Amino acid sequence: MNGANALDRVRIVLSHTSHPGNIGAAARAMKTMGLARLYLVAPAAFPDPVADARASGADDVLAAAQVVGSLEEALAGTVLSGAVTARRRERSVPVRSAREAAAELTGFAAHGDVALVFGRETSGLTNEEVALCSMPVTIPANPEFSSLNLGAAVQLLCYEMRMAALSPGVPASPDGEPASFDEIEGFHHHLEAAMTASGFYDPANPKRLLQRVRRLFGRIRLEKEEVNILRGIIAALERKPD
Amino acid sequence: MNGANALDRVRIVLSHTSHPGNIGAAARAMKTMGLARLYLVAPAAFPDPVADARASGADDVLAAAQVVGSLEEALAGTVLSGAVTARRRERSVPVRSAREAAAELTGFAAHGDVALVFGRETSGLTNEEVALCSMPVTIPANPEFSSLNLGAAVQLLCYEMRMAALSPGVPASPDGEPASFDEIEGFHHHLEAAMTASGFYDPANPKRLLQRVRRLFGRIRLEKEEVNILRGIIAALERKPD
Repeated sequence: MNGANALDRVRIVLSHTSHPGNIGAAARAMKTMGLARLYLVAPAAFPDPVADARASGADDVLAAAQVVGSLEEALAGTVLSGAVTARRRERSVPVRSAREAAAELTGFAAHGDVALVFGRETSGLTNEEVALCSMPVTIPANPEFSSLNLGAAVQLLCYEMRMAALSPGVPASPDGEPASFDEIEGFHHHLEAAMTASGFYDPANPKRLLQRVRRLFGRIRLEKEEVNILRGIIAALERKPD
Repeated sequence: MNGANALDRVRIVLSHTSHPGNIGAAARAMKTMGLARLYLVAPAAFPDPVADARASGADDVLAAAQVVGSLEEALAGTVLSGAVTARRRERSVPVRSAREAAAELTGFAAHGDVALVFGRETSGLTNEEVALCSMPVTIPANPEFSSLNLGAAVQLLCYEMRMAALSPGVPASPDGEPASFDEIEGFHHHLEAAMTASGFYDPANPKRLLQRVRRLFGRIRLEKEEVNILRGIIAALERKPD
């Protein structure tokens, strides 16, 4: 696939945006870099004339925007996703720089849709949202003043996506066919159910164990076949005679 | 010099900005990338509470901003400058991409101040302003929609400057000592005066010849000594017996 086609497979996901002006600015930033697929998770106000005004000509991006109720919906069908975050996380998944993430996402775009996810203006993404994505992505910024405006952050990442997609050296695409977001989530839900039924996991005392499991599998890029194998193992264990 | 010091030598010059909000957005964008030196050429409104509001914490950059009356003043003492422009120019000086320009500017910062110049929100830089700079710089954008917001353009260029300055491979600094903006302008004024006095150039039928001369010398990075040699030649020719 050529670079321009890779850009067609990039979803820009804005989660819980407060100010419609920032949605308009993001649409404009996307269009300047040749991206068109905007997903809005539970925006505070959309459509909105303020968004239209700030889009300044990127009305087509706004008109085609998908408004969804959850990040899971926005990521459905993707094969790789980056959570754009300024804060340092405790997760052991290595953080990618904007440039590194753009190269990796462009490579995976040969297999399907990829996504970049941006959080609330004030507080960014929640830990739960970051955990749903394949990798945290950070913009190398001044450590003493790293608060980029939402539109500016979208602009920078879209620029790096364009630079990666149109660079002469085509980014390497992964060897095996990557598992999709849905397949990986299906695996996690299956595993959680099995852990719960077995008594290993207690939903009344939750969260920490599931987070650690997600960290563990978040470090690898699961392929379709590997997810099938893992789920096969779980299913076999579930069937074991008691 | 290390990378952080190089960033201290970068002037961000905004020429004839109409909206103070964009000045604030530029200040914020600069500070997120560790840049601090803002020059404003004849801004429509500054200082202004709208600029303060959009700066969101980059008040120090605004407070230290230099307001000047002309681009010449903003470029005085610089050793290399880039004119950020979306339009294709007829000039034969090769256009640099944002990334290429950042590498070159970072290299020259070892010798003195460097500058990135941004034009009016609606019409960009004039041809005269571009001609005063060492090179045109363009952000690789969607050819069908290349109108970046001013703050977004400043954000991208400051990001590339930070990436270039802090990258492990230190950019090459030029061999000879580069001539400053003032020295090169002094040469052009000297040459123009000599051409006029000799009758070769007619100020009543102006512009085109001077532009071509600037194009010619704009393609090379004149060193201090080379400017001295050229001016010596002109002076010698001026003194020739008639």
